Amino acid sequence: MRIAELSRRSGVSIPTIKYYLREGLLPPGEPTGRNQATYGPEHLARLRLIRALREVGGLPVARIAEVVAALSNPEATGHELMGCAHRAVIRDPGRDTDEPGWRRARAEASDLVAELGWRVHPEAPALDLLADVLATLREVGYEAPLDHLPRYAEAALTVARAEVATAAAQPGRAGVMTGVVLGTVLGERLLAALRLLAHEHVSALGDDPPSCD
Amino acid sequence: MRIAELSRRSGVSIPTIKYYLREGLLPPGEPTGRNQATYGPEHLARLRLIRALREVGGLPVARIAEVVAALSNPEATGHELMGCAHRAVIRDPGRDTDEPGWRRARAEASDLVAELGWRVHPEAPALDLLADVLATLREVGYEAPLDHLPRYAEAALTVARAEVATAAAQPGRAGVMTGVVLGTVLGERLLAALRLLAHEHVSALGDDPPSCD
Repeated sequence: MRIAELSRRSGVSIPTIKYYLREGLLPPGEPTGRNQATYGPEHLARLRLIRALREVGGLPVARIAEVVAALSNPEATGHELMGCAHRAVIRDPGRDTDEPGWRRARAEASDLVAELGWRVHPEAPALDLLADVLATLREVGYEAPLDHLPRYAEAALTVARAEVATAAAQPGRAGVMTGVVLGTVLGERLLAALRLLAHEHVSALGDDPPSCD
Repeated sequence: MRIAELSRRSGVSIPTIKYYLREGLLPPGEPTGRNQATYGPEHLARLRLIRALREVGGLPVARIAEVVAALSNPEATGHELMGCAHRAVIRDPGRDTDEPGWRRARAEASDLVAELGWRVHPEAPALDLLADVLATLREVGYEAPLDHLPRYAEAALTVARAEVATAAAQPGRAGVMTGVVLGTVLGERLLAALRLLAHEHVSALGDDPPSCD
């Protein structure tokens, strides 16, 4: 298909498609003339993936480029891809890792994972995110949620089991790899949406929609 | 305290504090001279809250301003504050709500909440976020996670129950209001961090940390 059709079917504008081509997020099409190229279903699938990561996942283009590079690399392992997906979901820059309060929280994060019996690498980036949250809750003096850590962990484990099994069940290597990325990024937003709806339900706040006007 | 001490104790730079004062995120201090003012513990607490929402929650300043305005308004209800917190956590712009695929997903989101028996306003903004995710999963052809919706919902409900109860148990109106905001924003990152760690544990991927190099 021509670029116009690719744009129409993917919902991504032609200038944006050209930008992705320049930045290497999208592989070049098959040249059909001096200034023309034709694109296949793999281009359409890639654009839909980029759009999902961008519009729903809220990922910056630089992080999408890393994920896409790992997806396109035939030697990348599922583990590497999970690392890219994790890094994309953990927003930087996070907190200053030199602060004593943060260092204590980081140790606490490692202890928590050990207590849960989870097999996690000691340098997993999600431990830094967990430390960010723990350090901040202490700093603002709102430590009450920490009493519920086992409940958070149980909820996280339930969802993670389903997500990993779902990705692993996809057909072919490409299917599994795409499943890891989509499960990580879109699964987070799915859980986030349901959590907000559950807040509203549990607090039974009345008949007006939650608004901020 | 003077602005220099406020900066040191809050971890927020003096230019940033001045910016927050200009933008109304921070109330003015007590004037002590032509170009000097003194600040109290309420300024320190407010700065720590802003820093938490910004560094860990990743919220844009405009959304923090809305949350802070609702917190400072003595007539704001917990419901309004929840609305602000939800809106802050749901990243905009999201998807184009005129697309037929999105309209279908939005109807599906309402149906899902009805099936769960959750009491949620039909215009709750989190239903739009849920529709974003559902429409996108269908579009990229990765519908498998939808089989696990009941499990996501159960996990979300477990966490939401703990969060709402925790916020409600805070002392005083100001305590409850701050609890709603912190619980919504930091609770999301806490769950996100644990979910990523659970992914790593469940997939038992080996001895290297997840990286993206």
